[in-house]
Amino acid sequence: MNSKWVLLVDTVDKIGLIHQITGVLHRHNINIDKNTEYVDKAQNLFFMRSEIEGDIEQQQLLDELHQIIPSAHVQLKPMAKKNIVVLVTKEAHAIGDILIKHQFDALNANILAVVGNRDNLQGLVEKFDIPFHYVSHEGLSREEHETAVQATIDQYQPDYLILAKYMRILTPQFVESYPSQIINIHHSFLPAFIGANPYKQAFERGVKIIGATAHFVNNNLDEGPIICQNVIPVDHSDSWQQMASKGRDVERTVLANALRLVLDDQVFVSGNKTVLL
Amino acid sequence: MNSKWVLLVDTVDKIGLIHQITGVLHRHNINIDKNTEYVDKAQNLFFMRSEIEGDIEQQQLLDELHQIIPSAHVQLKPMAKKNIVVLVTKEAHAIGDILIKHQFDALNANILAVVGNRDNLQGLVEKFDIPFHYVSHEGLSREEHETAVQATIDQYQPDYLILAKYMRILTPQFVESYPSQIINIHHSFLPAFIGANPYKQAFERGVKIIGATAHFVNNNLDEGPIICQNVIPVDHSDSWQQMASKGRDVERTVLANALRLVLDDQVFVSGNKTVLL
Amino acid sequence: MNSKWVLLVDTVDKIGLIHQITGVLHRHNINIDKNTEYVDKAQNLFFMRSEIEGDIEQQQLLDELHQIIPSAHVQLKPMAKKNIVVLVTKEAHAIGDILIKHQFDALNANILAVVGNRDNLQGLVEKFDIPFHYVSHEGLSREEHETAVQATIDQYQPDYLILAKYMRILTPQFVESYPSQIINIHHSFLPAFIGANPYKQAFERGVKIIGATAHFVNNNLDEGPIICQNVIPVDHSDSWQQMASKGRDVERTVLANALRLVLDDQVFVSGNKTVLL
Amino acid sequence: MNSKWVLLVDTVDKIGLIHQITGVLHRHNINIDKNTEYVDKAQNLFFMRSEIEGDIEQQQLLDELHQIIPSAHVQLKPMAKKNIVVLVTKEAHAIGDILIKHQFDALNANILAVVGNRDNLQGLVEKFDIPFHYVSHEGLSREEHETAVQATIDQYQPDYLILAKYMRILTPQFVESYPSQIINIHHSFLPAFIGANPYKQAFERGVKIIGATAHFVNNNLDEGPIICQNVIPVDHSDSWQQMASKGRDVERTVLANALRLVLDDQVFVSGNKTVLL
Repeated sequence: MNSKWVLLVDTVDKIGLIHQITGVLHRHNINIDKNTEYVDKAQNLFFMRSEIEGDIEQQQLLDELHQIIPSAHVQLKPMAKKNIVVLVTKEAHAIGDILIKHQFDALNANILAVVGNRDNLQGLVEKFDIPFHYVSHEGLSREEHETAVQATIDQYQPDYLILAKYMRILTPQFVESYPSQIINIHHSFLPAFIGANPYKQAFERGVKIIGATAHFVNNNLDEGPIICQNVIPVDHSDSWQQMASKGRDVERTVLANALRLVLDDQVFVSGNKTVLL
Repeated sequence: MNSKWVLLVDTVDKIGLIHQITGVLHRHNINIDKNTEYVDKAQNLFFMRSEIEGDIEQQQLLDELHQIIPSAHVQLKPMAKKNIVVLVTKEAHAIGDILIKHQFDALNANILAVVGNRDNLQGLVEKFDIPFHYVSHEGLSREEHETAVQATIDQYQPDYLILAKYMRILTPQFVESYPSQIINIHHSFLPAFIGANPYKQAFERGVKIIGATAHFVNNNLDEGPIICQNVIPVDHSDSWQQMASKGRDVERTVLANALRLVLDDQVFVSGNKTVLL
Repeated sequence: MNSKWVLLVDTVDKIGLIHQITGVLHRHNINIDKNTEYVDKAQNLFFMRSEIEGDIEQQQLLDELHQIIPSAHVQLKPMAKKNIVVLVTKEAHAIGDILIKHQFDALNANILAVVGNRDNLQGLVEKFDIPFHYVSHEGLSREEHETAVQATIDQYQPDYLILAKYMRILTPQFVESYPSQIINIHHSFLPAFIGANPYKQAFERGVKIIGATAHFVNNNLDEGPIICQNVIPVDHSDSWQQMASKGRDVERTVLANALRLVLDDQVFVSGNKTVLL
Repeated sequence: MNSKWVLLVDTVDKIGLIHQITGVLHRHNINIDKNTEYVDKAQNLFFMRSEIEGDIEQQQLLDELHQIIPSAHVQLKPMAKKNIVVLVTKEAHAIGDILIKHQFDALNANILAVVGNRDNLQGLVEKFDIPFHYVSHEGLSREEHETAVQATIDQYQPDYLILAKYMRILTPQFVESYPSQIINIHHSFLPAFIGANPYKQAFERGVKIIGATAHFVNNNLDEGPIICQNVIPVDHSDSWQQMASKGRDVERTVLANALRLVLDDQVFVSGNKTVLL
């Protein structure tokens, strides 16, 4: 039975890897629709992404690949929609874009639920028949609140958590529960303006361009592997509130691009960087 | 003896091509430093570019590749500077950038000569110790002028001809003499504003963005395969002369990017398009 | 009583205009918060936009300005939300963005109604408690359909009509009913790819950048004064459907920028161009 | 006798300023070709730039303006080429672009001299018949070297000093000698990657966009008022050397844009920011 998969291989580089991997595919009469490799010469690492098609038995293929390249990290994922949970606070532009795309089948994901630490987006989310969980942080310690958020998330077992302007700092414990699964949109052109109110910082510095950054979240706030960035011009007449308003369009677009890449399995995490194939 | 080459393969797609090609490389103990493939599903075409390194015997490798994929178009080029001849008329920005890059070893090419149908750039070119040939079109038919230009070019046997704001229309006979070897910088965002004075056309239409296009030249003026494009914003206060002035920076940058791609053997021509690997 | 207004003046240029106009404002003790002028030297035209604040009597101010510059076109508009009606066909991205912005007070307009010649966006629009009018074109002549659309619009008396991917060609009669009031988002970087399916045209031409154009609609299809344009890169691996998908993000952003300019009274129409102050 | 000037006024804002200033111009029958104002509401500052034309007596006009707005900072500059001195170290791209533009009359400035702390650009500069002064820093303290550089500069009395990849840190004493007259091109998108080797920093952080910043130099390194910025995309396959190579094109373009603005008297310095009119 014909089906489409994405094969992701990352390993230490050595001569003949492409030949060995494509040899396994060839023996199974599997067609390669698209293939990209990247060799990081400095680190001596090899990355390969293949869109493959054929009568594919997942476990058997993984076993054979494991035999020939035992030390490699190999993933074989069906070309299908991922499951996501979205975390929000109070800004509507990022979640709004995701909801519209989801409703009109322009997002390669199923939104299982939205979790908010405020309730003002509940109405919007429920218009689109998506469950909204209001988990207030009022009166709770950071750990207590996160435990409640995590309990809510875990009943859905999502592939990815999307922080669509979720304005709470996450604990290492939380981040480690979802390794390379949490995607954040940061409202600055990182590493410029790390920390609180980047638009105000940008205004005060008098920059002529502002930006946004989508990245995986790791334990250092604003420091995880960057997936996408983009910028727009501003000028002396923009207040920081106007910068924030213009910036929202960039944030939304950058997050949309990052989601497209992640949901299509085009992103490898390598140290604190990403390799996009 | 170790050396570095670029292997370029384009052919009708079929199962197992990557495996076959990398197999030949593997048997010769050739290292693949970088590898990219692209399959054009609509046209059923396969493109592969490999940067390879090892004790490489050019003819033997080509012969073996020919045996296993006889219908493929295979090129094996040393990673080395290409030879170019540049054609100019009177504008200095494009040739100026190329001369500076060449002088400071930032161009992957040897400039063998510059040919101009006017003489006002002679002084500039000769400052850089490059031969300048003034081949005036005055009093000559188009064919007579081209014959003289071609005679000048052909004593150098260049890999590529660069039209750095050469403002003469080329005959089909001339173009066919240098198939996929002539690169032009066009001062508009093609296919908008084909023909004479695109900045004036852009001004009159009231566009908010202008651009430039680098492309291979074929028999249809302004119609060859596009290599690169870029744009900059303009506004109502720009006269067409100011658009032209701002546009020169984009023209220069777009041509520089196109040259980087072409001189590094990253460009396949496929029908009237380019595939950049 | 203090209030904020935008004063827009356009007229034939002559010495002393700024002095005369600001003199009237000064005598009334009106504060100028922001002032911009532009002189089109080639056409000898003067444009001035002032954000003013004070105890302003609209008619009296207009009368005095008329006395000193009788031939000028003078508009005095309160700084307040405009009323708009949006026309759609079946694509959700442009109207979706407008609805989200409207709901969260990020649009300087009241959406009075949405009119669609198909009904598939009815559910989305009504989620946001905006009236949706389904005016099918099935079985009607172009004139009959437009008469029905126009009857629907005219019960709302909007300041502007927004064509948010409305895919019907408008008759001159319709366009003339709303002079400089109809704003369209065109899915190409005009004037490239005028006409049907610009993404397919762009794909076939092999361009490396695609774009979108927001413009006022006049009687020549795709030919009205351009307000904003923007672009994104594409490459050889993008099918025209993928170009269309990526293009939707640009269309949405360009339309959002055009609406910001128009709704803030920053746009003069001058012949077939716009002056943005 | 008819002549063209730029009038620059910056002062504390109050009602009636535009009326008063244009009144003086009107009484002298001076034509305003272009006029722009900006009011910084937060700081209560007023900025006005006017391109004026007529039979203008500089001192008389300045005196009258001083009488009506005594506390204002007023500058009246002829629309003419500025005089510049360029400082370089060893990179050719920025000075190369300036030399070519100068030679072909595309720079609104006279290059009086180039000063280098290395001599490898001497040949290039002298090709263009511009004096090159080699002032080596070898064996000198920072202060001794600067004294020598300053002595060289001061024999030319330039309007502006252009740091075209001059890689020496300047002392406060030096910077204070040329207030708002020193323009630097910094090879990063400030404030990201302040300090040494920003391309290496950018590579290590794994950013997806790099940029360049042109700014006035003040006493805090990399901290002066920003004039222009621009960016280009990079990806995982770019080494920091390749980022530096691509970055050079942006550096050159950003510096060219900054020079256009400064040399046309479009830049006000306001605190640590610029206002571009």
